[in-house]
Amino acid sequence: MTLPAAANSVAVLSRFDAITDVAGVRVGHTTLTEGRARTGVTVIVPPELPCFAGWHRLNGNGELTGTAWIDESGLLTTPIGLTNTHSVGIVRDAIVAALATSRAWLLPVVGETWDGVLNDVNGRHVRAEHVDEALRNAAGGPVAQGNVGGGTGMICHGFKGGIGTASRVTPQGHTVGVLVQANHGRRSRLRIDGKPVQADDIPLPEAPEGAGSIIGIAATDAPLLPHQCRRLAQRIGLGVARTGGAGEQTSGDLFLAFATGNTGIPTGELDEQPPAVSAVSMLADAYITELFDAVIDATEAAILNALLNAETMTGYDGTVVHALPPDRL
Amino acid sequence: MTLPAAANSVAVLSRFDAITDVAGVRVGHTTLTEGRARTGVTVIVPPELPCFAGWHRLNGNGELTGTAWIDESGLLTTPIGLTNTHSVGIVRDAIVAALATSRAWLLPVVGETWDGVLNDVNGRHVRAEHVDEALRNAAGGPVAQGNVGGGTGMICHGFKGGIGTASRVTPQGHTVGVLVQANHGRRSRLRIDGKPVQADDIPLPEAPEGAGSIIGIAATDAPLLPHQCRRLAQRIGLGVARTGGAGEQTSGDLFLAFATGNTGIPTGELDEQPPAVSAVSMLADAYITELFDAVIDATEAAILNALLNAETMTGYDGTVVHALPPDRL
Amino acid sequence: MTLPAAANSVAVLSRFDAITDVAGVRVGHTTLTEGRARTGVTVIVPPELPCFAGWHRLNGNGELTGTAWIDESGLLTTPIGLTNTHSVGIVRDAIVAALATSRAWLLPVVGETWDGVLNDVNGRHVRAEHVDEALRNAAGGPVAQGNVGGGTGMICHGFKGGIGTASRVTPQGHTVGVLVQANHGRRSRLRIDGKPVQADDIPLPEAPEGAGSIIGIAATDAPLLPHQCRRLAQRIGLGVARTGGAGEQTSGDLFLAFATGNTGIPTGELDEQPPAVSAVSMLADAYITELFDAVIDATEAAILNALLNAETMTGYDGTVVHALPPDRL
Amino acid sequence: MTLPAAANSVAVLSRFDAITDVAGVRVGHTTLTEGRARTGVTVIVPPELPCFAGWHRLNGNGELTGTAWIDESGLLTTPIGLTNTHSVGIVRDAIVAALATSRAWLLPVVGETWDGVLNDVNGRHVRAEHVDEALRNAAGGPVAQGNVGGGTGMICHGFKGGIGTASRVTPQGHTVGVLVQANHGRRSRLRIDGKPVQADDIPLPEAPEGAGSIIGIAATDAPLLPHQCRRLAQRIGLGVARTGGAGEQTSGDLFLAFATGNTGIPTGELDEQPPAVSAVSMLADAYITELFDAVIDATEAAILNALLNAETMTGYDGTVVHALPPDRL
Repeated sequence: MTLPAAANSVAVLSRFDAITDVAGVRVGHTTLTEGRARTGVTVIVPPELPCFAGWHRLNGNGELTGTAWIDESGLLTTPIGLTNTHSVGIVRDAIVAALATSRAWLLPVVGETWDGVLNDVNGRHVRAEHVDEALRNAAGGPVAQGNVGGGTGMICHGFKGGIGTASRVTPQGHTVGVLVQANHGRRSRLRIDGKPVQADDIPLPEAPEGAGSIIGIAATDAPLLPHQCRRLAQRIGLGVARTGGAGEQTSGDLFLAFATGNTGIPTGELDEQPPAVSAVSMLADAYITELFDAVIDATEAAILNALLNAETMTGYDGTVVHALPPDRL
Repeated sequence: MTLPAAANSVAVLSRFDAITDVAGVRVGHTTLTEGRARTGVTVIVPPELPCFAGWHRLNGNGELTGTAWIDESGLLTTPIGLTNTHSVGIVRDAIVAALATSRAWLLPVVGETWDGVLNDVNGRHVRAEHVDEALRNAAGGPVAQGNVGGGTGMICHGFKGGIGTASRVTPQGHTVGVLVQANHGRRSRLRIDGKPVQADDIPLPEAPEGAGSIIGIAATDAPLLPHQCRRLAQRIGLGVARTGGAGEQTSGDLFLAFATGNTGIPTGELDEQPPAVSAVSMLADAYITELFDAVIDATEAAILNALLNAETMTGYDGTVVHALPPDRL
Repeated sequence: MTLPAAANSVAVLSRFDAITDVAGVRVGHTTLTEGRARTGVTVIVPPELPCFAGWHRLNGNGELTGTAWIDESGLLTTPIGLTNTHSVGIVRDAIVAALATSRAWLLPVVGETWDGVLNDVNGRHVRAEHVDEALRNAAGGPVAQGNVGGGTGMICHGFKGGIGTASRVTPQGHTVGVLVQANHGRRSRLRIDGKPVQADDIPLPEAPEGAGSIIGIAATDAPLLPHQCRRLAQRIGLGVARTGGAGEQTSGDLFLAFATGNTGIPTGELDEQPPAVSAVSMLADAYITELFDAVIDATEAAILNALLNAETMTGYDGTVVHALPPDRL
Repeated sequence: MTLPAAANSVAVLSRFDAITDVAGVRVGHTTLTEGRARTGVTVIVPPELPCFAGWHRLNGNGELTGTAWIDESGLLTTPIGLTNTHSVGIVRDAIVAALATSRAWLLPVVGETWDGVLNDVNGRHVRAEHVDEALRNAAGGPVAQGNVGGGTGMICHGFKGGIGTASRVTPQGHTVGVLVQANHGRRSRLRIDGKPVQADDIPLPEAPEGAGSIIGIAATDAPLLPHQCRRLAQRIGLGVARTGGAGEQTSGDLFLAFATGNTGIPTGELDEQPPAVSAVSMLADAYITELFDAVIDATEAAILNALLNAETMTGYDGTVVHALPPDRL
């Protein structure tokens, strides 16, 4: 199910209303719901690595590995992994193992949100093979949403959350896609297209409200430089705010934006002896507000898509988290 | 005129619904509307200096002086001045002159937004005496809003903007006040309590939409450390986003939060020979989300107060910018 | 072997000339040199968690997990792990497992440098049990240096490097200790107390010069707030610079400082229902330059201690990296 | 007088050993020594504006205006002004006035150090006409150093300081120039090429040691992107450290780097309707360490050039600050 374009949308929807509308971007999920597991891995694979990237922290009660290198080099050099909080390490090392022949060393980007209400988070259910599987399955086209991949056991604004994605096309013709792993927010502050949701009859999860996080990844085919990507990353947080998020104390609200509009960027490896100077393309800042609008709107839509695609789930210990019924919108 | 508490308000309104509800905080305005001037100076004076502070940049097409020292020391050491873009220097040096006997050197905090549509911005109408006047007039209690002080010639979301302020009290009993100099946003994206505003019959200003900025200052009586103030500052941007701001390319969206809950903080002056160790108070982070909510809600309310208190203005060259009629809400 | 106090030392040496001179700080190593392994794990355990902390990036070609939470909360909430680049994940997850009963979720701090010249870095020789062993072995008192723990296979300024530590006492009586995992630098730029080292007769490693990193951890018993810790962290880089480091392109020069002078800091956990306000202590900034000097000098000394304690090593594939003979100083 | 290339220099000296060795970069001074004035203005004018730029804060007890816009846009959009602490405002507004016809609004970059020991710093001796004069006088070729321009009344490492500059050429053929306004440091920590200076017979200034600042500006003709410029800016601090600076509490150690290797960068002005995408050049990171070395070495040389070109000065109230006699090296 897909939300209609919001009233304040900057432009028509793209083909799949997904981050995969940015040409060449692929998404893969491994979903683990056997036994006590309610978790998984999602990977986002840019069409070419490295690509320019930037990130932003709205609230830092979370982990996003690899950010020191993004800040320094402006480069995303690995696929992005998303999983639960206590499996960040295994996913990181598995991405290293999957790519280790390509470079001397690797600094993977792995984000997380905490699924300990529904998932046996200390059970170490995520293994290296699950990362390999997600990488192998990564594909363009429609993206499964809701209780899938890293989003399997997530809770969002007091309803069942998970993976959501959406995209927008700007007046200049650039595509912006956002994918979120949505595990954040309080029901009382949720706003959909500006309106609160009436759901007093639907039990709240037995968990502290707001004790979650949201990871947001934006992709665009616009030719952005690293500092421009960083600007887009911060706007993901504005979309979170419009839906009712506050960057709560217990939330890890970490956002990354990458741009596919430049190819052939030298990696900085000494042994590659790259040409000293490369030509790169840069979007004129006069047109960047269009991209900001697209990021904000696609983030709002991605959060709603996470809510609307998620299904009620019974956790490893019997806890039930209810989905948001679409008729409440 | 004052907005009723928004539906999503965290708590009851404070006494004046103003930043001055934080005990001891004073605000002073000098308003200049003679001849070609449509500008002025607003000062915000904490009850004691230094106090802990932090700041955040949502979009940097603006100036906020003194931030290197805030980042380094966590201290606000001067009153805050707000004026037009091309008068930042004179206001800064005038604050130095007004305080220069108190310290060897001073690094004042002065912010700005651009009023060049209505004001003869290159006419240097702001002079040192106007800063002195604003400092002298600074008072607690109700705060004049709209076309006053630094906000005199501002435009917000396609309507006449200016100075706005609001406050909230948290469940723990802390007061949070926000004051904005609102000169940002596009009418098409404006949302008031989540709803767009119908105003097709009211002409848009003859100026590029979004070509403005918003400076936001939050004060609280909670005993926050500097890094906690910085967290509050970022939430001002979430309030801007909920009202429809996007941190547009041409906008300088710079936010500062200061906390009055600690007094007697040593200044770092060598010649004062302060005791080596001081006791300070720190709010437990477990209660900080309340403050985040209060900042977001007070920012939304402050922007609306700016809009609702501003009056239609004719600029130095005859350009008219219309106020938002209250009946459109 | 221990370097004499540098001519520009701020004060006398502490007892062990080690980070463990800061009361209660413990260090543990697991050293792996069997078969193809030339690697290991080092842990640094503060006397109490959480404690205030801050970090700095001189060059970001490296990983230091947990930094988003340090920036946000100002808190170090776990022991610090140091290992090789491709074992960061396993060490991170093992720290989670070792501590997982204590909090709902954990965001461990793990740093790395790349030992792929001497160690079979993709052989996954570091396992969870090695982290447990290092945590179990962590102790105060003298610290083993050179080819130990995370520093086992490291190369520094063209000589065998590894773990080094040193400490200083400030005129105010505060102790500052620094521990480095030194794997950075070029021989041509090495300076010891300002002088280059003559070693043309000692073969350089068969590896690109400068293709390493340095992780530096500073501890102090001064009661610093988080933003003051961050200032100390940046000064570790000044010590690196004085010894000849340049934050080279291929180097991950990431630094963290923590302060033990405050205890009982609330964790921010909602279910702990901490008192709303805590008293904390703050060193007056008027005395912080002493700490800066101590950090710079202890960093220089720690790098030299790493060089002087390391021994010539033959790598997993026969590559030999020579130690710096003490008579060259 | 010019220092010989340091032993650790990366390459031969450029033509003037000055920031003006970067083609098209101009420097202008206005020096004020009449009456009670011991101050002035220095301007650094890039060959074309905007150009890519980045900045770094080693210690923030100082002001560098315009940095929010540099962080956001990656652009330097005005000439850089350097003056005394209490004249930042007048210099900023004077740069606005000098350029105001060229853009709707301007966010000038102005730095400062505090000359209150020798100069009547609250006497407001710097006026707008002095800024105009410095801009008019700005020229390529040899640069006057020592007691000139913004550096007129400065004190460095316990000796007379001021303006200093130096340059280096990298193996790839790029030129790096650094200009400092040197007013920082303690004599006891000063190191020249690694060695302390014996000067017990030369009285120390009657001012607290370290109560100063250093502003450092690096220029290069390498085609750097903004994030690469920021990396260079941080390395200025490493040169400061090697000479004995510690980023002392009372010091404002703020650094900016700009790159002239890209021209025709769109400004972001909406009314210019620039092409949506521009081609820019980027130096491969594999070669950036050469530039880091050049920045570090040129900064060391620039500080020494400031010391060696400065002359003993008697201040407005009779205080004498002695120059460093060249025979002490």
